[in-house]
Amino acid sequence: MRMEAFSDGVLAINITLLSFELKAPAFKEAFTSQSLFLAMAHQWPAYLAFLLSFATIFVIWVNHHRMFNVIRSSDSKFMYLNGLLLFLTSTIPFLNNILATYISTSATELAAGLTMLLFGAIVGIFYLMWNHATDNYHLLKRPAADVRVKTVRSGYLISMAIYGASAVLAALLPLVSIVIGLLMVVYLSRLKYHRDKVV
Amino acid sequence: MRMEAFSDGVLAINITLLSFELKAPAFKEAFTSQSLFLAMAHQWPAYLAFLLSFATIFVIWVNHHRMFNVIRSSDSKFMYLNGLLLFLTSTIPFLNNILATYISTSATELAAGLTMLLFGAIVGIFYLMWNHATDNYHLLKRPAADVRVKTVRSGYLISMAIYGASAVLAALLPLVSIVIGLLMVVYLSRLKYHRDKVV
Amino acid sequence: MRMEAFSDGVLAINITLLSFELKAPAFKEAFTSQSLFLAMAHQWPAYLAFLLSFATIFVIWVNHHRMFNVIRSSDSKFMYLNGLLLFLTSTIPFLNNILATYISTSATELAAGLTMLLFGAIVGIFYLMWNHATDNYHLLKRPAADVRVKTVRSGYLISMAIYGASAVLAALLPLVSIVIGLLMVVYLSRLKYHRDKVV
Amino acid sequence: MRMEAFSDGVLAINITLLSFELKAPAFKEAFTSQSLFLAMAHQWPAYLAFLLSFATIFVIWVNHHRMFNVIRSSDSKFMYLNGLLLFLTSTIPFLNNILATYISTSATELAAGLTMLLFGAIVGIFYLMWNHATDNYHLLKRPAADVRVKTVRSGYLISMAIYGASAVLAALLPLVSIVIGLLMVVYLSRLKYHRDKVV
Repeated sequence: MRMEAFSDGVLAINITLLSFELKAPAFKEAFTSQSLFLAMAHQWPAYLAFLLSFATIFVIWVNHHRMFNVIRSSDSKFMYLNGLLLFLTSTIPFLNNILATYISTSATELAAGLTMLLFGAIVGIFYLMWNHATDNYHLLKRPAADVRVKTVRSGYLISMAIYGASAVLAALLPLVSIVIGLLMVVYLSRLKYHRDKVV
Repeated sequence: MRMEAFSDGVLAINITLLSFELKAPAFKEAFTSQSLFLAMAHQWPAYLAFLLSFATIFVIWVNHHRMFNVIRSSDSKFMYLNGLLLFLTSTIPFLNNILATYISTSATELAAGLTMLLFGAIVGIFYLMWNHATDNYHLLKRPAADVRVKTVRSGYLISMAIYGASAVLAALLPLVSIVIGLLMVVYLSRLKYHRDKVV
Repeated sequence: MRMEAFSDGVLAINITLLSFELKAPAFKEAFTSQSLFLAMAHQWPAYLAFLLSFATIFVIWVNHHRMFNVIRSSDSKFMYLNGLLLFLTSTIPFLNNILATYISTSATELAAGLTMLLFGAIVGIFYLMWNHATDNYHLLKRPAADVRVKTVRSGYLISMAIYGASAVLAALLPLVSIVIGLLMVVYLSRLKYHRDKVV
Repeated sequence: MRMEAFSDGVLAINITLLSFELKAPAFKEAFTSQSLFLAMAHQWPAYLAFLLSFATIFVIWVNHHRMFNVIRSSDSKFMYLNGLLLFLTSTIPFLNNILATYISTSATELAAGLTMLLFGAIVGIFYLMWNHATDNYHLLKRPAADVRVKTVRSGYLISMAIYGASAVLAALLPLVSIVIGLLMVVYLSRLKYHRDKVV
């Protein structure tokens, strides 16, 4: 499906653009290997944000891939929901940039909270796509009996709840909310869309 | 068709590069979550331009997708028109940048007007591609009887007229012309290329 | 072939990245639409360089496409020549940047000359790929009799000669060499790889 | 396989983004062609780093391509290892940037050493993917007898050892370690995954 190819393109570019936020430490003639190492170590917030965003976009791709593996065809509504998914995902590099910039300031709460809200909203679009595709099974490949409609739906609902709670928690413990974001990558990577097919 | 893959690539990259114009507010050590929020709210012109450009490129892709769905083969002229389409689309991030930069200054009229002219010109290329492809139905898939040749042609003509009028209107009411640009996304998303196939 | 997909990706990204050299004129609060227009008109060197580079990468893609249309399979040498082609093409945005920056200074001669040399070198790689692929017809699709082996080879040789001459000419008349570069796009777009197939 | 398409996208973007580190020499009105040439010659560290990174990502793609040529299907673990491969590869432009910036300072040792460690780690992921795929031949295409399981495994182990040694060597002779990195591209480009198929 050409929609998959286009989505793959957008997701691949977004995941790759993240590394653009990683800048070499500002050039200093007098730098030795040791001072360069310290300057790089000082960049840990950028590395942490990069790791979180990369892992999240990758798990978005994995779930996109798995969902489309059990889908037979598309319709207009599904295509626009997919467009909305790509739109939200395309703002991850921007929020990643804000998070990396403000992670060690007192504006961290907002940066972490917005990131969690965005991730939750993306899962929300997945939820709408899934509900639409599985309604009367009308967009699913046949036989559709082995597709785990309810498991996936619950998985999305649980994810949205945790991301939401994590966004609230960010007001108090922003770094903890980031750790929760990393754990959610593991959780979302284990959603099973089909009784037999693992990938 | 390899032309579709290449076009998908160019469109996917253009749509993703838009998010690059979204920059984190300039770092200030003293920022709290509240001041960061205010600084982000202050960036609304960039968000509005991003929304307009993203939605427009997406609807360009949707129409490209739908047109190629009813097209059987290509020839040289069609390929070069497609190249021109990609050329014009590739300038959207540039104009988007100008629009975001000048939207709240007194140079807004030009920025909005040029954006509308560009969108109109892109639809104009679609028009030329469609006329060429449907001339004697020679590039259409068989059976071609169900392809809505005239509906699509009228849709393009109407779109060009509205974008043109919106470009003129931008001299007086630039923000209204941007709203018209957003409404045109809805209009263009509903063009039917085939009697039966919706996507 | 996966090599085509990878090449398409690299070419699509390079052609799209060109628009990144187009920067909005530096923000000035006092700008009116008229002063913005003048500032944009002042950017003509960037637009001209963008046009030249975009058209050239597009015609590289067209020829790549046409060559692979008559090719059946690949071998190691062909793959590495293709890698070299992508390497050289990936430096076009860099030279485009230099050209746009220095086009109206007295360093124009070097910028235009290097651009012509690069374009000539890229055609040179096409020449090597073509010679390798058509040697005993061993990489061509069957029947290979209709493939215009000599026409294409001559076309490459002529192009290399003209680009070379244009690089020399750049030392005297740099803008003329750029116009020649634009005309070469037309020439290269008309190379016929197959007696019947036009695309 | 959609995993190949996604990987192709990420690798194509990474290899193309490298050229972004190549910046036109800072604009000087008084530049002649001669002074521009000297300014460009002064940028040799950026060109060297670009060459090393481009060639390495290309050979990563070649090996990825060859590995997937003998692979029939994927499973979850293989997909996550592939994600890790893309993650590490996506940090090459960042390290390339650091290398280009610090190559002629006394911080070169660290920059070159980290680059070699990264390349070694990437080959390490290839090693894990290969071991997993060839374990009981369970992910290989049939017949699997002609797949050179041990040759490839040894090739990876040797590469890891050399990259590791080169990382250590970088503390003394950083430029030599970069030359070794370039030679490794040749070595890795010659790994044979299948008794018959060369590409």
